[in-house]
Amino acid sequence: MRIYDVIDDKRRNRELSKEQIAFWINGVTDGSIADYQSAALLMAIAINGMTDDETFYLTDAMAKSGDTVDLSRFGDRTVDKHSTGGVGDSTSFIVIPVMAALGKICAKMSGRGLGHTGGTLDKLEAIDGVSTSLSEERFNAQLDSAGLAIAGQTGQVCPADKILYALRDVTATVESIPLIAASVMSKKLAAGAKNIVLDVKCGKGAFMRDKESAKKLAELMVRVGRKAGRNVSALITDMDEPLSDYIGNSLEVEGAVEVLKGRTDCRLYEVAKALCIRLLDCEGAEQAVDGAIASGAALGKFRQLLVSQGASADVLEKPICRSACKIEVFSDKAGYVAGIDAMKIARVVLDLGGGRTKKDDKILPHVGIKLNVRRGDKVNEDDCVAIMYFEKYEDVALAREVLAAIEISDEKPQIRKPVLGIIK
Amino acid sequence: MRIYDVIDDKRRNRELSKEQIAFWINGVTDGSIADYQSAALLMAIAINGMTDDETFYLTDAMAKSGDTVDLSRFGDRTVDKHSTGGVGDSTSFIVIPVMAALGKICAKMSGRGLGHTGGTLDKLEAIDGVSTSLSEERFNAQLDSAGLAIAGQTGQVCPADKILYALRDVTATVESIPLIAASVMSKKLAAGAKNIVLDVKCGKGAFMRDKESAKKLAELMVRVGRKAGRNVSALITDMDEPLSDYIGNSLEVEGAVEVLKGRTDCRLYEVAKALCIRLLDCEGAEQAVDGAIASGAALGKFRQLLVSQGASADVLEKPICRSACKIEVFSDKAGYVAGIDAMKIARVVLDLGGGRTKKDDKILPHVGIKLNVRRGDKVNEDDCVAIMYFEKYEDVALAREVLAAIEISDEKPQIRKPVLGIIK
Repeated sequence: MRIYDVIDDKRRNRELSKEQIAFWINGVTDGSIADYQSAALLMAIAINGMTDDETFYLTDAMAKSGDTVDLSRFGDRTVDKHSTGGVGDSTSFIVIPVMAALGKICAKMSGRGLGHTGGTLDKLEAIDGVSTSLSEERFNAQLDSAGLAIAGQTGQVCPADKILYALRDVTATVESIPLIAASVMSKKLAAGAKNIVLDVKCGKGAFMRDKESAKKLAELMVRVGRKAGRNVSALITDMDEPLSDYIGNSLEVEGAVEVLKGRTDCRLYEVAKALCIRLLDCEGAEQAVDGAIASGAALGKFRQLLVSQGASADVLEKPICRSACKIEVFSDKAGYVAGIDAMKIARVVLDLGGGRTKKDDKILPHVGIKLNVRRGDKVNEDDCVAIMYFEKYEDVALAREVLAAIEISDEKPQIRKPVLGIIK
Repeated sequence: MRIYDVIDDKRRNRELSKEQIAFWINGVTDGSIADYQSAALLMAIAINGMTDDETFYLTDAMAKSGDTVDLSRFGDRTVDKHSTGGVGDSTSFIVIPVMAALGKICAKMSGRGLGHTGGTLDKLEAIDGVSTSLSEERFNAQLDSAGLAIAGQTGQVCPADKILYALRDVTATVESIPLIAASVMSKKLAAGAKNIVLDVKCGKGAFMRDKESAKKLAELMVRVGRKAGRNVSALITDMDEPLSDYIGNSLEVEGAVEVLKGRTDCRLYEVAKALCIRLLDCEGAEQAVDGAIASGAALGKFRQLLVSQGASADVLEKPICRSACKIEVFSDKAGYVAGIDAMKIARVVLDLGGGRTKKDDKILPHVGIKLNVRRGDKVNEDDCVAIMYFEKYEDVALAREVLAAIEISDEKPQIRKPVLGIIK
């Protein structure tokens, strides 16, 4: 087999065989296929697409390209979730403790990722003492004792995906539904959970701008996951505005803890609950989730997770965000909040130092934004609509950008639900 | 400007600007753009195509990426020809001497090329003593004194094209009409001639299999060349069967010399004459070309070229092909020659050692095939239909392949003209 012919077939829009795709991915992993050949093939895929079968073969080959986690000792109790990335999204810190409280095993492996705010690992590490670098032994021991763990990928998980993602990032081939699906699902397959829920974001602050493509991606990932024998479902959720009022690394943990402590009348909980229900997929699921919050069991599990990974025992009794400086942002007019631009908010957090643009950028864990208003709220002139947490004095001016992200209009907008669709 | 955005635009089938294309080609030339980015962009171009303007900008940028030949001292008298590559095609050795005999200046720069038989340089170097490595000074001096020269590219001609061609060769993006057109025409523009004729081959033994794509390529190259201010026209010629009876490096020179010596009743001369007429583009062109042959002026010019480049004065009085071994190939049935498969014939010559599959392969200059029959000829069983020239005894068996390339049928086939179309 020659990689030339594989590229040529895809260029001519012919379906690739399982063997051809495995040949490519093996060659990517062992370095025998040159970057420029993979780049050409990725572009041909980005333009000509992939069938379901091809996407599955790609996912499977990438999953098998490195280490995989064996959770078979837990039977069908293992759960995992994945979000395609949104602003103010800390559902993991709710879903995982709730699932653990309900007897499920949550072995979440996260990447660090590039984004306007940090990834799950960055948020967790924003808490004093917490580490996400767990050895395989420690990770497994924590699963056995506590039933939940959140850690960085140990060893070489999906090395082929890493190489291809880096290439896609510089060759304008990131935006491709089959390539995104294979990248996400290969990591989920390698992470070993039987039950997987996907949160596909769509809107201004998400990778998928419109619902149509979000739905396509979600459906494809569900089909690929099922073909691999996993129990997969997905939500499509709104990301026109931030999911929660807290945006920034430690701030988002704070927002999740607030929910775990019982503040459940918010969009963040609405999405987290829907994700939990998909994972439970049984009669009485909603009551079970509400009960895990109300009883404090989920909060207890989150404390157990944090303490197991290095936090002090009273971690949840102290403020998590320890920003040195904050400034209140006042509305300059009266009216209704017609929208909060997730992308603009995220951009401010990035500019404050809360995200990274390059892989090795250091993140400031305590900068961010706490919104005091939501879409549909009535505001008066000079109401405090947000608080901005910052570290460098020259960043004060960014408060103006926070205000610009909050659209005030005379008319009361329609309120939209955050869950736009369910694929089960 | 970022190369990422250039790739992204082409991926989305948006037209690239002159500046974007120049930015790419400059980056390819100075090495600042990575191979994998060019590979992705090439694939996007191969799939999505290019407009005429884009193709012209690409051609122009590649032509300017390296050294260019200045022939302005000769005014409008400079001519050049290019063939897209065929089997048994030695028209250059007829067209150039004829043009020089008629007062034109022929400064032909050739690449060595990959192919079933060698390129123009290999054929010329098959002649004892002849060198095609001329310094710029010697090349120019020969033009001033003799009016014709055939040499390898000196210095760095179209370095961007070299880099991109090597990439295309391993990423299944060679076959793209705008990319082929830009590659050919950039070298023609850099070579400096005012009048250019292109011989676009089509058929079994050519890169372009069907007349439709050959016509598209020819028309595009003519438009691009004219946009660059050159006087360009093109022929589309048949390459289902070898153009001449001689296939192989020194053999092809021998075939051309035969024509220059007056054997003009053959397809080789028919095409060579048509190319000359396009270059002269005036009343009485045909008579002038015939006259240059009949008077021996063209033969004299070819001798002058060879002697200037190192051959002995009596080079054309001696056999040029000096193969150690030859074997006659006899027909195994009677009938009419219905076709001679150019690709199969070329394959035999390659197997005999007359071509190269890798850049640094050494060529055997004197192996090849001399056909004794043409399409439409009547043959009896045991007629000698071809002579195979070889160097290694184990290659004798290839004689069977020569026979297999000659199709004998009961019915007399229609005779086709070699010139299928003219674009002027």
